[in-house]
Amino acid sequence: MIVDCDPGHDDALALLLAVGDPRLQLLGVTTVAGNQTLEKTTRNALRILALAGAGEVPVAAGCDRPLVGELTVAEDIHGGSGLDGPDLDVPVAAIADVHGVELMRRLIMGSAGPVTVVATGPLTNVALLVRTHPEVLPRVRRIVFMGGSTERGNTTPYGEFNIVTDPEAADIVLRSGVPLTMIGLNVTHQALATEEIIAEFRGLGTRLGVVCADLMTFFASTYLRVFGFEHPPVHDPVAVAAVIDASIVRTVAAPVAIELTGTHTRGATVVDLHRRTGEAPDVDVAVGLDVDAFWRLLMAAVRNAGQTPS
Amino acid sequence: MIVDCDPGHDDALALLLAVGDPRLQLLGVTTVAGNQTLEKTTRNALRILALAGAGEVPVAAGCDRPLVGELTVAEDIHGGSGLDGPDLDVPVAAIADVHGVELMRRLIMGSAGPVTVVATGPLTNVALLVRTHPEVLPRVRRIVFMGGSTERGNTTPYGEFNIVTDPEAADIVLRSGVPLTMIGLNVTHQALATEEIIAEFRGLGTRLGVVCADLMTFFASTYLRVFGFEHPPVHDPVAVAAVIDASIVRTVAAPVAIELTGTHTRGATVVDLHRRTGEAPDVDVAVGLDVDAFWRLLMAAVRNAGQTPS
Amino acid sequence: MIVDCDPGHDDALALLLAVGDPRLQLLGVTTVAGNQTLEKTTRNALRILALAGAGEVPVAAGCDRPLVGELTVAEDIHGGSGLDGPDLDVPVAAIADVHGVELMRRLIMGSAGPVTVVATGPLTNVALLVRTHPEVLPRVRRIVFMGGSTERGNTTPYGEFNIVTDPEAADIVLRSGVPLTMIGLNVTHQALATEEIIAEFRGLGTRLGVVCADLMTFFASTYLRVFGFEHPPVHDPVAVAAVIDASIVRTVAAPVAIELTGTHTRGATVVDLHRRTGEAPDVDVAVGLDVDAFWRLLMAAVRNAGQTPS
Amino acid sequence: MIVDCDPGHDDALALLLAVGDPRLQLLGVTTVAGNQTLEKTTRNALRILALAGAGEVPVAAGCDRPLVGELTVAEDIHGGSGLDGPDLDVPVAAIADVHGVELMRRLIMGSAGPVTVVATGPLTNVALLVRTHPEVLPRVRRIVFMGGSTERGNTTPYGEFNIVTDPEAADIVLRSGVPLTMIGLNVTHQALATEEIIAEFRGLGTRLGVVCADLMTFFASTYLRVFGFEHPPVHDPVAVAAVIDASIVRTVAAPVAIELTGTHTRGATVVDLHRRTGEAPDVDVAVGLDVDAFWRLLMAAVRNAGQTPS
Ligand SMILES: [Ca+2]
Ligand SMILES: [Ca+2]
Ligand SMILES: [Ca+2]
Ligand SMILES: [Ca+2]
Repeated sequence: MIVDCDPGHDDALALLLAVGDPRLQLLGVTTVAGNQTLEKTTRNALRILALAGAGEVPVAAGCDRPLVGELTVAEDIHGGSGLDGPDLDVPVAAIADVHGVELMRRLIMGSAGPVTVVATGPLTNVALLVRTHPEVLPRVRRIVFMGGSTERGNTTPYGEFNIVTDPEAADIVLRSGVPLTMIGLNVTHQALATEEIIAEFRGLGTRLGVVCADLMTFFASTYLRVFGFEHPPVHDPVAVAAVIDASIVRTVAAPVAIELTGTHTRGATVVDLHRRTGEAPDVDVAVGLDVDAFWRLLMAAVRNAGQTPS
Repeated sequence: MIVDCDPGHDDALALLLAVGDPRLQLLGVTTVAGNQTLEKTTRNALRILALAGAGEVPVAAGCDRPLVGELTVAEDIHGGSGLDGPDLDVPVAAIADVHGVELMRRLIMGSAGPVTVVATGPLTNVALLVRTHPEVLPRVRRIVFMGGSTERGNTTPYGEFNIVTDPEAADIVLRSGVPLTMIGLNVTHQALATEEIIAEFRGLGTRLGVVCADLMTFFASTYLRVFGFEHPPVHDPVAVAAVIDASIVRTVAAPVAIELTGTHTRGATVVDLHRRTGEAPDVDVAVGLDVDAFWRLLMAAVRNAGQTPS
Repeated sequence: MIVDCDPGHDDALALLLAVGDPRLQLLGVTTVAGNQTLEKTTRNALRILALAGAGEVPVAAGCDRPLVGELTVAEDIHGGSGLDGPDLDVPVAAIADVHGVELMRRLIMGSAGPVTVVATGPLTNVALLVRTHPEVLPRVRRIVFMGGSTERGNTTPYGEFNIVTDPEAADIVLRSGVPLTMIGLNVTHQALATEEIIAEFRGLGTRLGVVCADLMTFFASTYLRVFGFEHPPVHDPVAVAAVIDASIVRTVAAPVAIELTGTHTRGATVVDLHRRTGEAPDVDVAVGLDVDAFWRLLMAAVRNAGQTPS
Repeated sequence: MIVDCDPGHDDALALLLAVGDPRLQLLGVTTVAGNQTLEKTTRNALRILALAGAGEVPVAAGCDRPLVGELTVAEDIHGGSGLDGPDLDVPVAAIADVHGVELMRRLIMGSAGPVTVVATGPLTNVALLVRTHPEVLPRVRRIVFMGGSTERGNTTPYGEFNIVTDPEAADIVLRSGVPLTMIGLNVTHQALATEEIIAEFRGLGTRLGVVCADLMTFFASTYLRVFGFEHPPVHDPVAVAAVIDASIVRTVAAPVAIELTGTHTRGATVVDLHRRTGEAPDVDVAVGLDVDAFWRLLMAAVRNAGQTPS
């Protein structure tokens, strides 16, 4: 599995799940501008991997802005560092000296079997891979992306952050012909980090558990302020969880179109659940989440990944 | 109160509520193309008023198509007549020999006090009134319209039928400066006509009760077939109910924009519940429905309006 | 003939041509917001008609803003009054106490034969007539409008002022089924008021001649400042001239679409001269102008209309 | 200089000019889908270079489709091969085994001085270079592209083929910050291959002269059939000519926006010659062409490049 991400609090949890779950092999991590600038999301990815004892996983920086339009980072949600909250002062490895898109290409072409790509940021890197190197696509088993919604959005009324940030990239990925799973806000808004859950992470007795608790505590404060959420949703690890155990999300196949041209709806994921439009492409759209199983999976991975006492 | 409508099964129930509730004075009814052609929606309005013993209420036909674009009627939902199901063979009055927009103008200018306009079809007529006769607007107390959604739509993934049919009209009405209440699918999808409710209407012992039951039974069949709904939602009378008793819907003030330009989202009502856009105008958007009180109101009105035994 | 206009310097010349040419019968004038506010364009129409001795022609005010969007007047081109330059202090008649759209309806329905509508402002009034009173359309011989361009625009790179001001109205008119002639910038930019022409008007020895010369002199100053034109184009009278003598403009039938949704091109008239799009509707699009014949016609009309010595 | 192209008849002439003019150093050629599929445009580039004795110039294939949307080739203009007309049966070199975007990156990074990129096809490759490898941009002296128009288009009323094929790519390139020269239809429609010019090429007495004459003769037949042009315009070599001798085109600096969202105008280059929009970016837009100097340049290059007798 390759994780393409923009850490980001929930991306951090997604990386920990990818590192800590014994069933996954994390081939590499690529970073993209989104929650914060590319420089910051890349540093954050390195920090989290180092903390999780996965400093050997190759990390490469990808695109520093969306295909079209300007980048607007989510500083109100993720803070100035993109990962505000915990103390993350750790020595980190160097990034690969190739572009993120090129690292993805090499990892996929070098893999003995098909590779799953999990994308938890704007889809800029994945879209560039699709468009520049279509020859790798037959070797991609599936792209599982956190993004969009079957219902309302978070960045605009009908737009979710990852897709709104780079709608053209999402459109390219959706039309790529690769099997797709969409993990939207409609399910990730069920993955709420309650006080009990945060306390459970903190109680793991490891540095990593404390970092997770601190991440979720910070996230809780911004979600309360900006959206009035009682508990913050942790979006991105749901996508990794769906790769580990397909039964964690219930999906329906539906056409999904990306709105590229609306005045108020650019970046909306238009999911035709009632099949009224007759449009392609078909995406496995998550519509249900086994919340308990999800948290058990994440908790186990964090316990597994981080043995250093707090 | 003036009702501008496109009957339509739920428009018929809205008219019955307007006629039968003792607290309302129905000054006139104007019709618009929508669920069916103007000719059919006008005939249906006359039929329902005649059945309810309100044949003296002036009815005028308005616009036969949306401001921009072509009309697509909802024959799959309302049948070939626009009011399939019940036997509606009644003698009807003639329509007023003025245009619907002109009738609205005259009724408003002729009223001693401010007038509420309830719109349960595409907003074409109301928009033409706003644009052609802005001098009447200070005499309009409020426009309550059934249309749009804070969540998903019914005609397209994010578009509701009335607004999708004439987005420019909706935009004009939303920017008119008149106080507005939006009754969207997010609440009308709670006004479900269960078997028990239909049986209760049929049990009223009046011809009108049977007509209501037949209307809802037909509506149930199309909603099941097209949308897989177990029970059909009766959208339009919720708007009339909100005029009778403001406590029946819970509203929040929010900016609402009409998407005029999207490829997949034209006609979406973009309701900024989290005030992220900074956009005007402010609309009182229904977000909750007192379902029991709604049905009691509608049942009482039908009992009141129709004394002819079945 | 009915003239729907927003005077406006060139609208004033169009009215003078309509009044002064013996072959035309000017049934009425309706006004619309455009070059200036409705109040100002209406007063300007009354002034010009009074000056031309046509104070008996009925004038009615129409719409005070476009169907969709806000009005932006062309004060940089037409000045604060909408008709800056000449001394226009004349007693004027009262306007009709009906809406401009209603006056158009009555004039058309009351005419023994078919009526030509010449529109020299945004098409708001004409569109409302089309949509509110489709029953009059069979009695409209032709709509000749000044607006659009087969080439570049003047308000935006590809948008001309009248169409950019109300694109939805233009779309409604273009799809009305009435025979249409489009007089765009591509021909009106050939109707340039040179110093010689202005001098000739001034030399007519009548007050009207001086007014025309003053109008064109002011227009010359703004066109030089804003567009760098050596001589100002007088757009609107070309549309009236085309009604008087069809040989004055050379036309080709072509599909014309109004761009309603572009980010930079909203309001462009997309004229498919090479028939590449396969789109309807067909419009007689002016592509050539007999410049000399045009000026002779206008000069003769001004000489004919205004006998009061200067 | 690097030429990124989609040969294409006029691309072929652009390559010959790049090869044959002694003042240019052609570092490499990259190909893109456009006039024909990537496979065909790549083969055509190899053929032309071989014919011109430049088989050693590295050629790499780039993108096989636009960033967003589907490819529509211009078979009606360039024929089934993309280069119909002449006999082009020559042995060709192999293409580089890197992607076109990567070849561009290497050539630019490996060059001692700044490199000019001439793009004569859809801007897909150049846009991917800009987005994937922004580090090379300071080493790009200028991007000169054939595309767009200040007036009408050729593929749609306001859209030129290269830009309409990949509007997002054009938008990315226009916002790249690299100095830009736009060679649009407004000037290339002056570079008409008359019978005299074609005869002059044929009279060069070389195989290459005959190929050029055959290319232009075929092009003449399609331009006559599709557009009714008396003589065909040879667009692409004008861009190369502008690099060789800046005095051949007269340019003005103007904001140019790409219309990404119009219903009828997607892909239009909106050139704000009158500076009405206040928009960036500034592009050196060609508005005049020294036609004689252009043909002299092209003729000399073809004479120089191809010494093999016909
Ligand atoms: Ca993320
Ligand atoms: Ca209705
Ligand atoms: Ca005008
Ligand atoms: Ca080309």
